[in-house]
Amino acid sequence: MSHQPTLYTSLSPALIQLYDLNNTVVVVIDVFRATSTIAAALYNGARYVIPVDSVPKAIEISAATGGIAAGERDGKLAEGLSHGNSPMEYKRAFIEDKVLVLTTTNGTRLLHMALEQGADNIITGSFPNLSSVCNYLTAQQKNVVLACAGWKDKFNLEDTLFAGAVIARVKEHFSIHCDSSFMAEYMYRQNRNDLPGFSKNLTHYHRLVDRFGYIDDIAFCLQEDVADVLPLYKEGRLIRQG
Amino acid sequence: MSHQPTLYTSLSPALIQLYDLNNTVVVVIDVFRATSTIAAALYNGARYVIPVDSVPKAIEISAATGGIAAGERDGKLAEGLSHGNSPMEYKRAFIEDKVLVLTTTNGTRLLHMALEQGADNIITGSFPNLSSVCNYLTAQQKNVVLACAGWKDKFNLEDTLFAGAVIARVKEHFSIHCDSSFMAEYMYRQNRNDLPGFSKNLTHYHRLVDRFGYIDDIAFCLQEDVADVLPLYKEGRLIRQG
Repeated sequence: MSHQPTLYTSLSPALIQLYDLNNTVVVVIDVFRATSTIAAALYNGARYVIPVDSVPKAIEISAATGGIAAGERDGKLAEGLSHGNSPMEYKRAFIEDKVLVLTTTNGTRLLHMALEQGADNIITGSFPNLSSVCNYLTAQQKNVVLACAGWKDKFNLEDTLFAGAVIARVKEHFSIHCDSSFMAEYMYRQNRNDLPGFSKNLTHYHRLVDRFGYIDDIAFCLQEDVADVLPLYKEGRLIRQG
Repeated sequence: MSHQPTLYTSLSPALIQLYDLNNTVVVVIDVFRATSTIAAALYNGARYVIPVDSVPKAIEISAATGGIAAGERDGKLAEGLSHGNSPMEYKRAFIEDKVLVLTTTNGTRLLHMALEQGADNIITGSFPNLSSVCNYLTAQQKNVVLACAGWKDKFNLEDTLFAGAVIARVKEHFSIHCDSSFMAEYMYRQNRNDLPGFSKNLTHYHRLVDRFGYIDDIAFCLQEDVADVLPLYKEGRLIRQG
């Protein structure tokens, strides 16, 4: 038991500095919607995704690479970007063989924070690629940090629920002494049978649905294994692994 | 509805800067054990408590005031302090009419962080003084931040459960749009009937009980209204209000 790797859950980007990311698999989690969109784009044949931390950089890099400048700020399309952060936009007919240059309020920012903190093994996860994430974690046998993107450094429940879903599946393989992980798994187990119904309690649900009408996005982002690929970060790109 | 004051829950001192503390009641929560001990000391007749953020300052101020230099670092008595951070130490026969100068790893540090951030209305809360805290919050009709002390900036569940207990009692009086508050109340409602049993899941339980044997402390800290006073911060002192 004591020789098992550790698993921790970081509930906000503002807490990520509490965890050692060296020689650790960091799972960046932004369920609504960046990491769901990344899974959808790669599942539907995108060559790769370049996650960037600012709108100007997204525009600059898309111009240089011929990629699609996409993303959002505060939940809506940012000026200068041609596409948004909805997984529904990245159907195969549109995204196949293309490069997606993506910037978002929380998820892509957290990925860059993890890089700056020395992370050398980053994947992205959401319900659409839950099984691929879990299979990777159990195969690697390395320490794990489940890194929730939250909303502007605030805690959110949808990322926590996904962390809980991972923990429920992989916990026999890890040594877990972490109240965040316990709470995440607890919330997931209590509500796993109706995540769409439960999601109506969440602040981000209302931000997305009441303001922008993204009800299909919510349903997709909470559905397990509908875009079951493993996005692995390598030299500036998220590439579909395996 | 829209004219009600707001209520937010900050799950860690590392998140407190996300919240506006001006003209806001800040409830500092460190269930195991600082804010339980503060309630116990004031309930048992301490003149007041001086919360300080370092061991040398505790020693210096206790010398100057004739107070008792007390506290802990990493859960145990720190060198140079004469008493610890157990509510059991502060029975009436010992603490009545005395001044307690208290420094702790998380709770007193968070109180000083809130002060530095401009908080001008700070109280402390734990299960032993739950009703006094709730009565004060509903009477004040001001915005509220429930500030969990956590453990070295990490999330913990015992402080979260207390935040949930407060929310369960006062929520009709506040406008609450905050996933932290929703989760806190959810965890509390699910486990309110057996908090001592549930507490065995918590990392801090094992830190206190397995290492130091503080099982009586745990029971006291989770018992509602057994030291039901309101500690209000005023000019460097926590004073029993009303």
